[in-house]
Amino acid sequence: MEETFMEKSFVCGTWQQKRSFSPAVITEGNQTIVWVAGHTGATADDGRSLAGNFDAQFHQVFSNIGKTLAEVGCKLADIVSMTVFLIDARYTTRMTELRGGLFGDNFPASAAITVSGFATPEIMVEVQCVAVRA
Amino acid sequence: MEETFMEKSFVCGTWQQKRSFSPAVITEGNQTIVWVAGHTGATADDGRSLAGNFDAQFHQVFSNIGKTLAEVGCKLADIVSMTVFLIDARYTTRMTELRGGLFGDNFPASAAITVSGFATPEIMVEVQCVAVRA
Amino acid sequence: MEETFMEKSFVCGTWQQKRSFSPAVITEGNQTIVWVAGHTGATADDGRSLAGNFDAQFHQVFSNIGKTLAEVGCKLADIVSMTVFLIDARYTTRMTELRGGLFGDNFPASAAITVSGFATPEIMVEVQCVAVRA
Repeated sequence: MEETFMEKSFVCGTWQQKRSFSPAVITEGNQTIVWVAGHTGATADDGRSLAGNFDAQFHQVFSNIGKTLAEVGCKLADIVSMTVFLIDARYTTRMTELRGGLFGDNFPASAAITVSGFATPEIMVEVQCVAVRA
Repeated sequence: MEETFMEKSFVCGTWQQKRSFSPAVITEGNQTIVWVAGHTGATADDGRSLAGNFDAQFHQVFSNIGKTLAEVGCKLADIVSMTVFLIDARYTTRMTELRGGLFGDNFPASAAITVSGFATPEIMVEVQCVAVRA
Repeated sequence: MEETFMEKSFVCGTWQQKRSFSPAVITEGNQTIVWVAGHTGATADDGRSLAGNFDAQFHQVFSNIGKTLAEVGCKLADIVSMTVFLIDARYTTRMTELRGGLFGDNFPASAAITVSGFATPEIMVEVQCVAVRA
């Protein structure tokens, strides 16, 4: 018989839970790994610019990631690790608040890094991540 | 009988194809993962400085990555994910043009991030990546 | 009989060895992957601020990562890849010196990137990494 299990477990942390990330996520067994590109969200689905609107861009980023993941039968909850690149450090806490609404209690591992720029000047946040499914 | 297959598939995207990256790359089965360090290319093979020459540094970076991958029986086409760190956001589009020549139609997932600096002042681009082979 | 081996090997490089990283680390077989969040170390275990003290923050970062890894039966030597985000490029060489003391001769793959900021102004270094064990 084939061994087909995949198991995912979380190191849940203490204060990290309030910042909506896990110190570590562990995957084992027969893993399918989805290497997700950096996603941005400076433009709404209807073409409107979201320049200057951090909250809207953040939601758009994860809407866009969700669509990419859906193409391979995954959802946001399958994300195990992410790097959040921000245009201004003062968005860091707001980012953790918004992220809290996207996941249940099992958060991905994450780093939050402030950088100098992105592909276009409108972009305020870019997220690169990895998802794992059975 | 041993299960030894490894399968790689691509979410190909639309506009992303013109920027020479895939929204996601999926790897499954019996994967050998090559965790590649950040590679730079501020110095040519003959010792000349490539300071100030973005195109030359970009090609040198991937020449250097190619040599590292060759040591473990891999090639650039085995790269599934990369993060491109740039010293100036205005090199982003040029980077995607140069990258288009390195891969066929199956591009790695990628993020392009502009940062404040690297190990030495001459470095204009650093690429960290992951390759997967059977 | 189950196939349960996991094998890790290193591309050791030449000058990279003196900067305490490997050009690439290869993992194959039945891998358990630990996706580790970005860890910082601006506060000592006893609550003292380590603001302004790069060496102390660096050691604290890896002390914190070590604790996270210990929760899942791993140690620093299981790290295969890391990204070191620094607040000032001039800490890069010092970082490689300090890192030399943390690992044996088998270093993780690594990128060292200077960025604009972190979650709080005291943070001078953040490390995101991946560990693999059997």
